[in-house]
Amino acid sequence: MFTATHRVQFHETDMAGIVHFSNFYRYMEEVEHAYLRSLGLSVSMTGPDGSVIGWPRVRAQCTFEAPAYFEDVIEIRLKLMRKGVKSLTFEVEFYRAERRLARGSLKTACCIVAHGQPLVSIPIPEDIDVKFIEEPAESA
Amino acid sequence: MFTATHRVQFHETDMAGIVHFSNFYRYMEEVEHAYLRSLGLSVSMTGPDGSVIGWPRVRAQCTFEAPAYFEDVIEIRLKLMRKGVKSLTFEVEFYRAERRLARGSLKTACCIVAHGQPLVSIPIPEDIDVKFIEEPAESA
Amino acid sequence: MFTATHRVQFHETDMAGIVHFSNFYRYMEEVEHAYLRSLGLSVSMTGPDGSVIGWPRVRAQCTFEAPAYFEDVIEIRLKLMRKGVKSLTFEVEFYRAERRLARGSLKTACCIVAHGQPLVSIPIPEDIDVKFIEEPAESA
Amino acid sequence: MFTATHRVQFHETDMAGIVHFSNFYRYMEEVEHAYLRSLGLSVSMTGPDGSVIGWPRVRAQCTFEAPAYFEDVIEIRLKLMRKGVKSLTFEVEFYRAERRLARGSLKTACCIVAHGQPLVSIPIPEDIDVKFIEEPAESA
Repeated sequence: MFTATHRVQFHETDMAGIVHFSNFYRYMEEVEHAYLRSLGLSVSMTGPDGSVIGWPRVRAQCTFEAPAYFEDVIEIRLKLMRKGVKSLTFEVEFYRAERRLARGSLKTACCIVAHGQPLVSIPIPEDIDVKFIEEPAESA
Repeated sequence: MFTATHRVQFHETDMAGIVHFSNFYRYMEEVEHAYLRSLGLSVSMTGPDGSVIGWPRVRAQCTFEAPAYFEDVIEIRLKLMRKGVKSLTFEVEFYRAERRLARGSLKTACCIVAHGQPLVSIPIPEDIDVKFIEEPAESA
Repeated sequence: MFTATHRVQFHETDMAGIVHFSNFYRYMEEVEHAYLRSLGLSVSMTGPDGSVIGWPRVRAQCTFEAPAYFEDVIEIRLKLMRKGVKSLTFEVEFYRAERRLARGSLKTACCIVAHGQPLVSIPIPEDIDVKFIEEPAESA
Repeated sequence: MFTATHRVQFHETDMAGIVHFSNFYRYMEEVEHAYLRSLGLSVSMTGPDGSVIGWPRVRAQCTFEAPAYFEDVIEIRLKLMRKGVKSLTFEVEFYRAERRLARGSLKTACCIVAHGQPLVSIPIPEDIDVKFIEEPAESA
């Protein structure tokens, strides 16, 4: 499991006095990118042939269990649930101290990203692939 | 089905040259709120006893099929898939002309929202409930 | 004067129950881009030699006079105050009906924008320049 | 001078490959709030009589000197330039290492903030006021 923290900023709250739900998807991405950095990677990398490899989102979902508030320090926990040939699937959980606020998942695809061109899905290059270690789901 | 359109703004794009995925969740909410307005409702309403009724999100998910670009006019289609005692579940689809860009769903819960207080889930009040008409899923 | 309207979305509000101030800078840009579209231009255009011409911001300021609220329809008024050799300076005012909510200004520079390269400021190309008509400040 | 750092997130970039200018106003606020926390204060505080004291923005401006990029760690430097009876004026500078990216200013007003009520400007309460120390502008 990889974890990062995020302090809730004022502009992330809404008129209900809580963090706007759309920000949880941004927090998911923040922890994913911090995880990539921890492996010496980036969400935007130049391959050996000069092409840019990126990880566009295929699917993201989140279930909200309790609100987050201004100045909360949220702990975001990321697990690589599944490593496919061309994709990664992460599980993400959000905590304020012991209280789980939300949980979700994020599926990304390895792609050649050329500005103004369609995204082209590719198998994860081997030198990158070896860095990703799947974490099996916990048995109950 | 209820539809609204959204023109993609520059600040909604990211360095990959496409709309950042988190904005699709905001667009979902925009069409949901336009739908509520079309029924004479709002996402933030004062009940007869002065309490504020809101619709916090329970769950939202989205699958991304093709990128959206700056200045695209996106058509967002909303269907009320299920009306529960205390919740609504919407299906949302995003189109640029004939091309579907993404599809997702959004579940909201009817709640008493008091600033700084925990959200309290309630049955949808009857005068509001009668305005919501479920649309059965299409048979294949 | 060029005008556009913007309906305040829920995610643009903050825990003070009003539109977060940073969104006014986004609204400024929205009306600027709508103005460029009205002239047959775009904020991101390909020049005759294939280079991309953009208009990065040099300076933006805004003074806030009254809050904007959820679902308000804000009228945004744009005036080209000054056309320089390489830059444009706009005045922007925000109204809800007769009430002015804010006023600001935006200075942009005509630049060659190449991804990953420094921005290079250039004189506004003549075929674009002729489309911009300065509006003299009103005499008191 | 008070300083904080901010690592640029992917969703803060735009299709020009740089941080969208509107985020600099958010960063200004982030460092202001971190500064308030460092003084044992918050941007949203409950006064002795139960009223909520906030600091709505009166005016904010920023001049952009060089772009910021994804994953940059930006140092944000805040100085209290002027403490008025009812307002604070900050100078803010943004650096990536030795390179200044932008500089701006932010004026905030001490107000009673009641949800759904007009903001009421008040003199800064004395127990709060004593914590703010003006920093005189440097002599050239």
